[in-house]
Amino acid sequence: MDYRQRIAKLQEKLRRKKFGALLVGKPENRRYLCGYRGGDHGIDETSGMLLVPAKGKVHLLTDFRFKLQAEQEVSWAETVIYPKGILKLLGHLLPDLAISSLAFECNYTLYSFADKMMAGLAKKGIKAVPTDGLVETMREIKDEEEIGLIRSAVRLNEEVFAEIHSTLSDYPTEIELALAIETCMCRKGAERPSFETIVASGKNGALPHAVPGSSPIKEDGSLTIDMGLILNGYCSDMTRNLVPGKPDKQYMELHRLVRRAHLAGVAAIRAGVKCSDADKAARDIIADAGYGDNFGHSLGHGVGLAVHEEPKLSSRSNKKLKTGMIVTVEPGIYIPGWGGIRLENMYVVREDGCENLNTDNTWLDI
Amino acid sequence: MDYRQRIAKLQEKLRRKKFGALLVGKPENRRYLCGYRGGDHGIDETSGMLLVPAKGKVHLLTDFRFKLQAEQEVSWAETVIYPKGILKLLGHLLPDLAISSLAFECNYTLYSFADKMMAGLAKKGIKAVPTDGLVETMREIKDEEEIGLIRSAVRLNEEVFAEIHSTLSDYPTEIELALAIETCMCRKGAERPSFETIVASGKNGALPHAVPGSSPIKEDGSLTIDMGLILNGYCSDMTRNLVPGKPDKQYMELHRLVRRAHLAGVAAIRAGVKCSDADKAARDIIADAGYGDNFGHSLGHGVGLAVHEEPKLSSRSNKKLKTGMIVTVEPGIYIPGWGGIRLENMYVVREDGCENLNTDNTWLDI
Repeated sequence: MDYRQRIAKLQEKLRRKKFGALLVGKPENRRYLCGYRGGDHGIDETSGMLLVPAKGKVHLLTDFRFKLQAEQEVSWAETVIYPKGILKLLGHLLPDLAISSLAFECNYTLYSFADKMMAGLAKKGIKAVPTDGLVETMREIKDEEEIGLIRSAVRLNEEVFAEIHSTLSDYPTEIELALAIETCMCRKGAERPSFETIVASGKNGALPHAVPGSSPIKEDGSLTIDMGLILNGYCSDMTRNLVPGKPDKQYMELHRLVRRAHLAGVAAIRAGVKCSDADKAARDIIADAGYGDNFGHSLGHGVGLAVHEEPKLSSRSNKKLKTGMIVTVEPGIYIPGWGGIRLENMYVVREDGCENLNTDNTWLDI
Repeated sequence: MDYRQRIAKLQEKLRRKKFGALLVGKPENRRYLCGYRGGDHGIDETSGMLLVPAKGKVHLLTDFRFKLQAEQEVSWAETVIYPKGILKLLGHLLPDLAISSLAFECNYTLYSFADKMMAGLAKKGIKAVPTDGLVETMREIKDEEEIGLIRSAVRLNEEVFAEIHSTLSDYPTEIELALAIETCMCRKGAERPSFETIVASGKNGALPHAVPGSSPIKEDGSLTIDMGLILNGYCSDMTRNLVPGKPDKQYMELHRLVRRAHLAGVAAIRAGVKCSDADKAARDIIADAGYGDNFGHSLGHGVGLAVHEEPKLSSRSNKKLKTGMIVTVEPGIYIPGWGGIRLENMYVVREDGCENLNTDNTWLDI
């Protein structure tokens, strides 16, 4: 990755907006800009923040625990340790660097932190300014190198699914199957799952975000598997729905209906199309069949360094798709007391359509 | 758990502070107050927020994906779905409930969300007020039922460690060992690991937050295993350090030094003691031996529904320990190029000392 080029592009933005620097805490933004892989234990326990001045050297601010890792992974930046917390450090580092206005990510900064920072810096004549999307808009459009990495993450995810599927009868319960999937991912080189693997059998499929439990996997019951992994920083996300044995008529009808909605969504995706229109294309199919109330979430979401990122394929989004965006398409039908079906692949938005990043569509095409 | 009693206690606080309601988004606070187990995909993708009015019925606000789960798990509260987002819902729900001031958790609310909420509600004559610690201070002191649950989480964690340790030679690399630990946890009934398991072999031990990789586990190399799990909502956290084969003299000396620091920390813990004094008791041992710069983090932290919570056993904390608090004690020595040693147990603060929640101290006592 050409981190210097990304930093240069961001610095140009900062100069245009007359910010002295941007403080980057969102893990994906940080990784995008410098490759630092430090893991955050939640938003209030950062493994470091990147200070990108409008001109000059980038500083990676971190604490003792991550010093070695920061120095190894981002040797071209200046690693600075904050023994007394990041706000204390900013209080003297910013004046040293002659920075008089500090932009911060208002969509990844706690209100309490922002409040203290604004008050503390004001005393030193420095203005802290909430900003939004400076790095995210850069991340929305993937270049071919990134698309290649995401393709690899999708392929590995499919490889894991195929391997686990071929030994499906080894796993008696949802949790055993979920564990097998996540172990297989990591053995094959994934950094970790990109979200908590969903394995929902039978009626549990009616919960779009079911947590795998001790429910048995039955030969004649439906099975929703929603899985993703992170490979070289980039995420994959895929949902398959199947019945291990022979599906009944109702299952087949609903599966095919969701598949038709999926394909209608895909057919609507190309550069220039509004996100809400892609959502509508799939939603209309399900609504026309009488299941509108059973499809209560958006059609899909962007995927990249984060598994959920912009753009959202939502009925509420007027954003237009652009070439190089990568999105999931994942319509679903959820019926309390019966179960659910969701079918999800990942697609690259192209000028005249979209490219399916998934290659194994066996379980979509039943 | 007596959720109604907790709610009643919080409502009394709200009335005393003249707040009309508290909006609870922090997952651990939410679970503490109502038992809802919905999983959040990060701070900007909540699985629901609890609206606790100063008087009257509690509302669990969530979206379509979590409706069934919310209704099942918190049947005594009013589940309300927000098809157009939580801010839109608050805009009409608060006036309906005649709530004119809404407290929100400033240490778990994004600046952007708070900003929009304050502006949006102001238009309706409702004041949104940042607050901090209303629920956390309740969570700091554990009752005997909670202590029992945490003890079970600690015991299960030890059981997993013992099982994995007895088959240590089966795992050639850090990542294989970490996967075996996490799989074993879930098989034995844990909800999930309470943090990403740390397995650091040899030199990697110098990184306090090492990520398990493909480094081999060597017979004569040191091994840091920092592991924890969540059982019935409550966390455990434990670090063991060992050499699978025969440790050399330097390892033994440092291990014993860290053990002495651990015991000095433990000896300092009882109700009424300042957190910084407990930290100092352990730190002095390590500093006196010449390794002060190699112990760069705090002595420990509170554990409960969150694996890291108040109080912090930090040199910067003047907070006084109270009976019923549960803390880790985990001094460490980290030497770049050599490795590291950290020894961690969990303790309940009592009137006249503290109670060790761990029972297997084999690997501390070498």
